Amino acid sequence: MSSTEAPSYPVDARNRVKRRHDRGFYDHDTVHRLLDAAVLCHVAYVVDGLPYCTPTLFWREGTTLYWHGSSASRMLRNLSDGQPACLTVTHFDSLVLARCGFNHSADYRSVMAFGEARLITDAAEKRRALVMMVDRFFPDRTAGLRASTDQEIKATSVVAMEIERASAKIRARGVVDDDEDYELPIYAERLPVRTVIGAPEPCPRLMPGVQRPEKLGGYRDGRLLEDALAEAHAAAYGG
Amino acid sequence: MSSTEAPSYPVDARNRVKRRHDRGFYDHDTVHRLLDAAVLCHVAYVVDGLPYCTPTLFWREGTTLYWHGSSASRMLRNLSDGQPACLTVTHFDSLVLARCGFNHSADYRSVMAFGEARLITDAAEKRRALVMMVDRFFPDRTAGLRASTDQEIKATSVVAMEIERASAKIRARGVVDDDEDYELPIYAERLPVRTVIGAPEPCPRLMPGVQRPEKLGGYRDGRLLEDALAEAHAAAYGG
Repeated sequence: MSSTEAPSYPVDARNRVKRRHDRGFYDHDTVHRLLDAAVLCHVAYVVDGLPYCTPTLFWREGTTLYWHGSSASRMLRNLSDGQPACLTVTHFDSLVLARCGFNHSADYRSVMAFGEARLITDAAEKRRALVMMVDRFFPDRTAGLRASTDQEIKATSVVAMEIERASAKIRARGVVDDDEDYELPIYAERLPVRTVIGAPEPCPRLMPGVQRPEKLGGYRDGRLLEDALAEAHAAAYGG
Repeated sequence: MSSTEAPSYPVDARNRVKRRHDRGFYDHDTVHRLLDAAVLCHVAYVVDGLPYCTPTLFWREGTTLYWHGSSASRMLRNLSDGQPACLTVTHFDSLVLARCGFNHSADYRSVMAFGEARLITDAAEKRRALVMMVDRFFPDRTAGLRASTDQEIKATSVVAMEIERASAKIRARGVVDDDEDYELPIYAERLPVRTVIGAPEPCPRLMPGVQRPEKLGGYRDGRLLEDALAEAHAAAYGG
C-alpha cells in the first residue's frame, strides 16, 4: 500500500501518525478506499476558540470532500469562509480481549483528513453537488426524483474541502499478547463487529405499481454497508 | 423524555440544537442512554488554533466521560491541562430515500458532550480508571487478568471530562415527504442499518481447557452491539 509511484498525501506534523506509526498510511488509494466505504463522518471545527465535533453525511470526489447541512446550522455558518476543519471517518471492526488490561484493544480503520472548508456559492457547482449528494449513494437516482425547488436549493448548504493532508490508521491484528502471557490460563478473543444493511422498508404510501429500482439492488438485507457504499461510489464516479 | 423533574444538562448557545430543535434532548436519561450504548466516540480538540477529530474508546461514569490513549499521542499531550473538548457519539440507524432530493435523510441518534478534558494524574484514580476501562465493557474481567505492570500503567494515559453541556439529537422518522409528493410514482424507502456482533473468535493460542467466561455471554453472534454495551454498562455500574 506504500508504492513509491502511487500518489500520496504530503505528511507533516499535522497528519503524521505519531502513536503506532506502523499503522499509518498516506497513499491516496488507502485513504480514498476507506472514505468511499462510509456515509457518516465526524467534522471537527473551531468556533470562538472552542472545538465542535459534528456528525454528518459526506462524500468524496477526487481529492475533494463534500458535506452538507442546513444553511442555518452552526457548523455551516462557521465553515463558510475557508476555515480549517478535520473530517474523520472510522470503521469499527472488533473489540479485542487480551490476557492483560494493557493489550485490550480494537481493530479499526480510520481516516483523518485536513483542509479548509468553503461554502459552495457558485450556483452551477452547488446544483451539481446536490445531485451527487444523492447520486453518489444511489447512482442515477436524482433523474427519477421530483425536481428540487429553488427554495430547497437555497435551504441546503454544501461545503467543499480540498484534502490538504490526510492519514489512514489501520489496526487489523486481533489478539496480540506479550509472549510470556500466552502460557497463562486466561481467555482471550477477537469479537468482530460489522455494520450491515437490514431489509429495505418501502414507504407505506407508495403509489400502486411503483417498484424498487434495480439500481438499488446493491443495498440488500445482510450486506455490509461499506461494500454497498463502495460499490455505489464506483458506479457514480466510475471507480 | 423532558420531565421537569428529571435531571438535565444546562442549555446555552454552545449545546443548543439549533437546526431542527424538535430533535434535541438535554435530559440525563436520554444523553446517558445513548452514550452507554457506544464504545466508539470522536473527540474534537484544538491545537494551535486548528481542529482535530480523533476516534477513540470511551465510557461514562455518572456525569464524567473517560477516554484513553498512549501517553505519547497528540490528543493526550494536548488535553492534559483542562482544555476544552467535544466528545461526540453517533448511532447510525438508516438511510432514507425520499421522493425528492431535499427529503433524502438518515435516521440517527447522536450526543455531543462539552467540557474540559484533564489528564488523570492521581495514582489511585488512574488505577481505578484503568480497571473500569476494561470492566465497563466486560464486567469483572480485570480480576481474572494478568496484573498490569507499572510500566504499562505509565504508558497509558486516561483523560476525564466532566460533562458541562450536552445535547442529544434524534431522528427516527423514516421517509417523510411533502404532502403533494406522495402522489408521485416515485419509489421511496427507509434502508435500516445496524451494527452487530459477529461470532467470537477465540485466540488460537488459548491454553488447553480455557473456556469463554459466562460473563461474556452478552456478546453473542448477531446481537446488536449497542444492546450488549448498554447491558455491560448496567452490570458494571449497577444501572
